[in-house]
Amino acid sequence: MNKFSHLFEPRSIAVVGVSDDVARPGSQVVRALLKNGYRGKIFPVNPKYEQFDGLKCYGSVADIEEDVDLVVVGVPAKGVLPVLEVAAEKRVPFALILSGGFRESGPEGVERERRMLEIARGSGMRIVGPNCLGFANLHANVYAAFGSITREPKLKPGTVSLVTQSGGFGYSIALACEAAGIGFRHVIATGNESDIDTVQLIDALLDDDQTKIILAYIEGTRDGRALLDVGQRAMARGKPLLLWKAGVTEQGARAAASHTASMTSSYDYYSAAFKQSGIVEIREIDQAVDYLKALEGGKYPAGGGVAVMGVSGGSAIVFADAGEPAGLSLCELTEKTQDALQGVIPNIGAVHNPIDLTAGYFSAGNRANLETAVRATLDDPNVHAVCVNIATTGKAGSIVAAEVLGEIARSTEKPIVVFSSAPASQIGEALTVFAKANIPVLPSPSRAAGALATLANYRQARARVERAAAAAASQSATAPRDVFPRNAEGALSEAEAKAILAAAGIPVSNDVIVSDVEDAAVFDKMTAPLVVKIVSPDIAHKTEVGGVKVGIRTRAELAAAIAEVLDNARQKAPSARISGVLVTEMIQGGFELIAGVVNDEVFGPVVAVGAGGIYAELLGDTTCRLAPFDEVTAREMLDELKCRRILDGVRGKPALDVDAAARALAALSRFAWEARDQVGEVDINPVFVLPHGVVAADAVIIPKARPASQPVSGEQ
Amino acid sequence: MNKFSHLFEPRSIAVVGVSDDVARPGSQVVRALLKNGYRGKIFPVNPKYEQFDGLKCYGSVADIEEDVDLVVVGVPAKGVLPVLEVAAEKRVPFALILSGGFRESGPEGVERERRMLEIARGSGMRIVGPNCLGFANLHANVYAAFGSITREPKLKPGTVSLVTQSGGFGYSIALACEAAGIGFRHVIATGNESDIDTVQLIDALLDDDQTKIILAYIEGTRDGRALLDVGQRAMARGKPLLLWKAGVTEQGARAAASHTASMTSSYDYYSAAFKQSGIVEIREIDQAVDYLKALEGGKYPAGGGVAVMGVSGGSAIVFADAGEPAGLSLCELTEKTQDALQGVIPNIGAVHNPIDLTAGYFSAGNRANLETAVRATLDDPNVHAVCVNIATTGKAGSIVAAEVLGEIARSTEKPIVVFSSAPASQIGEALTVFAKANIPVLPSPSRAAGALATLANYRQARARVERAAAAAASQSATAPRDVFPRNAEGALSEAEAKAILAAAGIPVSNDVIVSDVEDAAVFDKMTAPLVVKIVSPDIAHKTEVGGVKVGIRTRAELAAAIAEVLDNARQKAPSARISGVLVTEMIQGGFELIAGVVNDEVFGPVVAVGAGGIYAELLGDTTCRLAPFDEVTAREMLDELKCRRILDGVRGKPALDVDAAARALAALSRFAWEARDQVGEVDINPVFVLPHGVVAADAVIIPKARPASQPVSGEQ
Repeated sequence: MNKFSHLFEPRSIAVVGVSDDVARPGSQVVRALLKNGYRGKIFPVNPKYEQFDGLKCYGSVADIEEDVDLVVVGVPAKGVLPVLEVAAEKRVPFALILSGGFRESGPEGVERERRMLEIARGSGMRIVGPNCLGFANLHANVYAAFGSITREPKLKPGTVSLVTQSGGFGYSIALACEAAGIGFRHVIATGNESDIDTVQLIDALLDDDQTKIILAYIEGTRDGRALLDVGQRAMARGKPLLLWKAGVTEQGARAAASHTASMTSSYDYYSAAFKQSGIVEIREIDQAVDYLKALEGGKYPAGGGVAVMGVSGGSAIVFADAGEPAGLSLCELTEKTQDALQGVIPNIGAVHNPIDLTAGYFSAGNRANLETAVRATLDDPNVHAVCVNIATTGKAGSIVAAEVLGEIARSTEKPIVVFSSAPASQIGEALTVFAKANIPVLPSPSRAAGALATLANYRQARARVERAAAAAASQSATAPRDVFPRNAEGALSEAEAKAILAAAGIPVSNDVIVSDVEDAAVFDKMTAPLVVKIVSPDIAHKTEVGGVKVGIRTRAELAAAIAEVLDNARQKAPSARISGVLVTEMIQGGFELIAGVVNDEVFGPVVAVGAGGIYAELLGDTTCRLAPFDEVTAREMLDELKCRRILDGVRGKPALDVDAAARALAALSRFAWEARDQVGEVDINPVFVLPHGVVAADAVIIPKARPASQPVSGEQ
Repeated sequence: MNKFSHLFEPRSIAVVGVSDDVARPGSQVVRALLKNGYRGKIFPVNPKYEQFDGLKCYGSVADIEEDVDLVVVGVPAKGVLPVLEVAAEKRVPFALILSGGFRESGPEGVERERRMLEIARGSGMRIVGPNCLGFANLHANVYAAFGSITREPKLKPGTVSLVTQSGGFGYSIALACEAAGIGFRHVIATGNESDIDTVQLIDALLDDDQTKIILAYIEGTRDGRALLDVGQRAMARGKPLLLWKAGVTEQGARAAASHTASMTSSYDYYSAAFKQSGIVEIREIDQAVDYLKALEGGKYPAGGGVAVMGVSGGSAIVFADAGEPAGLSLCELTEKTQDALQGVIPNIGAVHNPIDLTAGYFSAGNRANLETAVRATLDDPNVHAVCVNIATTGKAGSIVAAEVLGEIARSTEKPIVVFSSAPASQIGEALTVFAKANIPVLPSPSRAAGALATLANYRQARARVERAAAAAASQSATAPRDVFPRNAEGALSEAEAKAILAAAGIPVSNDVIVSDVEDAAVFDKMTAPLVVKIVSPDIAHKTEVGGVKVGIRTRAELAAAIAEVLDNARQKAPSARISGVLVTEMIQGGFELIAGVVNDEVFGPVVAVGAGGIYAELLGDTTCRLAPFDEVTAREMLDELKCRRILDGVRGKPALDVDAAARALAALSRFAWEARDQVGEVDINPVFVLPHGVVAADAVIIPKARPASQPVSGEQ
């Protein structure tokens, strides 16, 4: 656990704020340490007492004769800073601040939190909290915590570590896991995360050999790139990282802002980071339980082909319903498999998928048949995983199923999941056998499907992330570079923006800027029909001032159009500075996309792409990724769009150049990354995907320093 | 229980197929009846025995001296028909056939099932099954069942009745309910439903005073209209009907077809029936449990405003996230409420929504404050329901919460739900208090949101269904009528279809059919631009033969276009019969919808509407309702579409005539209903919604007798 080892396995702990009131956090911490058999030294601190629970009680941290690895602070907010000053003086390396009354509680708390960090930084002391429940290290009996973490039921030791911003809710997840038999190693509630945050803790846990899976609940992070990195590192280490990001809706985000006062950012960016790192997102307590159970097995199906077998036809249908949208299919079984099944399943059963074993199949007399049936099914090359529905099967039958499947599981790399609805009180013995064999037992067929889908997705994500991370690594190393003209002020003009994007490798339309009707001679060098647009830093909505004319087919029409837009602009926007008139070729055919960059405070440059046009806007058909990324990732983005099929050509129209679109997106992402110090926002709207190539038809670039409320959407 | 009372409370039961083999269904039935204290007479039947379990055993049903209300048949499939013949002869009114080997098992079984029904109908005997687990009537100790229904744990008596096509899976739902403390009245597994089906049983249960809520699992129904009716009747009786329709995906439907060989139909039609009847759809076992718990309370919030209060900020955020898409909002609290809360919540808490009561709030010393806080919140006019997050609160605190909330619940009509994550083993006493007060306790904040949303939706559905049912009642009474020309053959031509639809009250475009260039004189009576299309019963795709010309602006252009499409058709489709050329006004502006009718085998005439154009097709932006329906329902359909906002006018475009669109849809639904004996399918594609009115620009009507594989999509 590297730099945090003395935090999580402290040799000595001072607890400030013990009292006769058992409800006080400090008192709870000392009692939890004693009760759980913490083997280091405990120094209770309260000037009013000589002794506390049989331990010598100190007047101040300064009075403690020995070194202190961790000071736990449970005094009311107003008393926290003096305690920290003393601890800093004593060079205590870590402080855990349980008290609330900081950033989350108004201006006074904000100032208190600022001072707190100042004190800590002065001495190099690192802080967990404030406003948190503390942490427990189950293998070393460190219970530096109060409240639910210290109460019954005590969590079982295991290989899952939990990091949670919200102690109360995070521990609710832990309790559900505990009830399902999942054991824990570290449980850490981080509260305000003023100093040490979830991402840093996950990073440390990746180096803990005994932590095999990490579960986290966050309301926000202040460094989206660090989240991406730690997710990719977790994937590289083969340790699944399950993450619940709360505050994903508008009202959820509002509630989060008032809770731990976390930095929030668009959920879309989190979602992109999850995709780019293989973080397994969870949105429900049951998902945490189910996915952990499944991931603990460590077997990942090579594809989505599932054989469903069991004694309940209805359960198989429900599995099929839930599996389809999750990418699982009830695969065809080979003739060989069906022949083998024929020999061991009664005639009124079914040897196609779903396999109907018939009622009462799980019985002692049927052990050999069951084994043959399951092995034959697993041997089928179309089958990547098996779901066995034992459904309401009772005690004796469940044990038969558990023993047979447990034995088979030892010699297959294909995952097996089980649906059982019998009460745990009845089939406890079977559940123990299943658990030993790492076969997850789920309480509904849909949840069995969800667990299998998670395993399949994890394997897919691993391949995707490994490839993309390798590609991005070289790109990320690129130093920021100058993209702006020195004298740029406000949003760049369409012409300037297009020139910059063209230089970055994004094809733009063939444009010429002219200043008066004489310049209509450019007509001869262009392909009609043409479009003219007024160019002015002061005119955001060109159409509204009559500054756009389309469908120009002759040189004379061009001259007239140039004159007209200049005239309109002078009349309707007399004070606007006119830089000229942009003449461009009208793009015909193809499909309109919108692409853009937002340089987010938390996630840095993010590239988005979506369907263009009015309907798409209503549907929110967009997706995004953190820049930079390669063309394969860009193609994955395009593949996510609802409009994707249109690009392949529909209703007799030609297929469009998806490769060129992916190249342009990847180029935009490189540009966004290299220009990260200068560019605040890029909008390319529309960019046309044509049968050959793509063309950005309009573009705006807004510098980073400008506030985000500038008008940004371009128009043709 | 009216006509089924002697089925579900039989005075005497003959059980055919008892044997020394305890695993035989017949043996299980007799033992279950004896064990559960059935008070009627039991007549075991097996010619091999004199006695069975201390009861006189009969050689045949014919040998039984007394009247038999119910014969339970558990012999292998081949032996079932002879038993039924004897029972029919004896005028036994009801048979329960447990045996499989019927329709679900191939051609021989299909024939067996046909004969079975023939025998039954000959004597008026009604049948449950075959291929089912049987039923239990908990208040009368009738366990006419085998397998899981007869095993431990025994269900508690209660007010929920369950009807399930799949015994194995349906009983899995029952077991989960049992574990959550929900009690049952009737549990009926129906298997193949050859005679008595789920809908008929639900109908009977609506007349059972002690059944307050009905839960059903079906894979299909053969009469969608009966499902709609029973759903509406359940709503009128104030008995929530929760229904799980399995086989909703393509692979789910395939699996269902091989299971109980049910009639399947598009899930969209089921979904329409649910909306039109207020049936509460469930898709997961946990939903059944949660919604039953909530609905048992019988309190329905007047709106979506929820106050969330508790000791876990994270839980409130998770509630907010789950509540937003479900239509629940964390409402603003009035100043009066906030003032009241200020007095009883510590300073570091929060008196806005979500209300942070602060850690440890649920404690004996704090009872009065808690009561004041909850009452003040419930008194707030913005608050329609309250969610209290006790989260990890332990035994003592949970009892305080349960007692205070339980007391308050007695004097409020606003529902209260609770989220608790403490193990039931710890807070069992509190759970009992909550249960007595009908306060549902959910194991996650998202599930608490789901339960509250179900209550809010149920109230909304009740208002909607009552209104719509009243409107539809008069329409439904309409007799079928002739809409087709006597000599109609195949799909009706565009002109014929439009004439019929116009007569039905659906505005169509201004069309004239002409036969040659001389007829270009019609130009003077029409408003350019015009469109011409070839009219031929043999040309399905007019564009492909050059049979369509658009943008005609002069009389000369019209003459040329008429000549051209006639010429093209003669050249490219020389054998096609040409009926003439349709001249129509080109519709400009507005938004394209597609509307249509499918006369479904299970559901009868169903009207669908969706966004038109290429993009909409990819997105499946459509919705449907069973015909007939009124304009309010039609408007609700339009409101469901993703494209709905476009109709209000976007990007400066004028608002479109949604009222006219609703009128046209309602007219189409009346037409579909009245023409139900003749019309198989109607496609109106496109129908333009204009700033004033709507216009059907192309239409096809296909008669009922024709197979559905005809080309149906029109084109302009």
